[in-house]
Amino acid sequence: MQLGMVGLGKMGANMTTRLQQGGHGVVAFDRSADAVAATVKESGATGAASLEEMVGKLTGSPKAVWIMVPSGKPTDDTIDALCALLGPGDIIIDGGNTNYKEGLAAYDRCKAKGVSLVDAGTSGGVWGLKEGYCLMVGGDDAAVKACEPVFTTLAPEKGYAHVGPAGAGHFSKMVHNGVEYGMLQAYGEGFEILEKSQFSFDMEQISEVWCHGSVVRSWLLELAVLAFKDDPKLADIRGYVDDTGEGRWTVQAAIDENVPAPVITLSLLARLASRQDESFSAKVIAALRNQFGGHAVKKEGA
Amino acid sequence: MQLGMVGLGKMGANMTTRLQQGGHGVVAFDRSADAVAATVKESGATGAASLEEMVGKLTGSPKAVWIMVPSGKPTDDTIDALCALLGPGDIIIDGGNTNYKEGLAAYDRCKAKGVSLVDAGTSGGVWGLKEGYCLMVGGDDAAVKACEPVFTTLAPEKGYAHVGPAGAGHFSKMVHNGVEYGMLQAYGEGFEILEKSQFSFDMEQISEVWCHGSVVRSWLLELAVLAFKDDPKLADIRGYVDDTGEGRWTVQAAIDENVPAPVITLSLLARLASRQDESFSAKVIAALRNQFGGHAVKKEGA
Repeated sequence: MQLGMVGLGKMGANMTTRLQQGGHGVVAFDRSADAVAATVKESGATGAASLEEMVGKLTGSPKAVWIMVPSGKPTDDTIDALCALLGPGDIIIDGGNTNYKEGLAAYDRCKAKGVSLVDAGTSGGVWGLKEGYCLMVGGDDAAVKACEPVFTTLAPEKGYAHVGPAGAGHFSKMVHNGVEYGMLQAYGEGFEILEKSQFSFDMEQISEVWCHGSVVRSWLLELAVLAFKDDPKLADIRGYVDDTGEGRWTVQAAIDENVPAPVITLSLLARLASRQDESFSAKVIAALRNQFGGHAVKKEGA
Repeated sequence: MQLGMVGLGKMGANMTTRLQQGGHGVVAFDRSADAVAATVKESGATGAASLEEMVGKLTGSPKAVWIMVPSGKPTDDTIDALCALLGPGDIIIDGGNTNYKEGLAAYDRCKAKGVSLVDAGTSGGVWGLKEGYCLMVGGDDAAVKACEPVFTTLAPEKGYAHVGPAGAGHFSKMVHNGVEYGMLQAYGEGFEILEKSQFSFDMEQISEVWCHGSVVRSWLLELAVLAFKDDPKLADIRGYVDDTGEGRWTVQAAIDENVPAPVITLSLLARLASRQDESFSAKVIAALRNQFGGHAVKKEGA
């Protein structure tokens, strides 16, 4: 089917290529003209220089547009701009990591104009072009049904599911990422305990053997094999871990639901700690131990 | 090769079957004569009514015996009894979840008699018969080399590695299990956040779609699909989680090494909490909130 694609970063560009390879006709737009030109060259998609031009080149009915831009204001602004250009029955698919509450608010704004906003939680990262993207899709039945040819092309076999009404896609993708935080932290801690042990383990060997027949085998572990093969001691990588919000929202959702989620929460906090050059709370603890017990402190700069 | 097998529970019996299928000759012993009879019938192994009889039926040199009995005293006692029956150059393989410090002590006791104790961390559970067991093996080079035909039959392709000297097998298997605690807890929390959400998620559908193309795909997640297929709300399963020690030892190792391992630690603590009918610490907190703020308490039995 014909589909507009807004946002040609790593995800949007690769998805455009996978869709074109699957026989779909993508009209691709990015605010960077260079990104449009690169995607047109790479994938054979039709380029567009503006949202208006992109929508104008969509000839079918209903028109459908996939948005793959950063979450928050960029996504919200794009949804609202598209909504003004589209008509009743048309469909916008938000494939980004949008907060599900913001997504539901956008769904209502779109619905007021007769446009159906579908939320497609998308996992797979840079490997998705080759292996397919896992798609957790929320939205109105008719709109989701109309876009299924696109979903089944993007996903590997069994990797697409319509998981519920509007918001369910973003929510389940958010929790998916929360689980990912916990898994990453568990592997990270395990490898550090191995690394600091009395044994001189070969991390590539351990991660490789764990991939075959063990209870902890996973796709993330296969990536660990690649990482340790590249750099056995991870000497070139700082222990600084960023986040893009889904962990925070998962913790907030757990709190809203009164669900104790200690491991997902602590995995988020471990990321925050990883970014500190110095810990004020550790300073406070050192200062108080000195006050009450005369325990030595390390002087700043010493 | 010929191999003695001591302990014919789920693991030992299945491993005997896999070894017999792979062309090895197993002499099988368990303190339960019924277990021996069942294994002989199932696998075609040779049965033995005592450790002495088992060792007597091993005709090659060096003799090799695999121990698959509960960790702690049962394993230690079996090692010592075997050590008395075996001679210099013979090999004992401990495939159980033995604490690596106890394993190293047993290694020294065996070494004093010329017997080589190999520690083979074994993962795979009840699926190992079909899919193979992941084997992390520690021990002397010559002894490990001599037993490789057994290891490569038990493991799937690439699922066996000689990871270091004596103790390294048990240590890496211990950390493997610690990582498993964290992964299980992360999945558990994620599914509870989904379950308690405003969306009526189908857990079998979510776990299934996550298995295909997503970042959190894993073998444990494939088992979650089976569990939710059997019982979509897990209505028949109590939220009571046991442990067999490896999590505690992993936390202890992390503390010994000054490695912060919050997620593995909390995963262990969550298991402890899962077994409490009542929490004394929560009683204390409720009592103190009542004392300082007049906050209502729930009366016991109300």
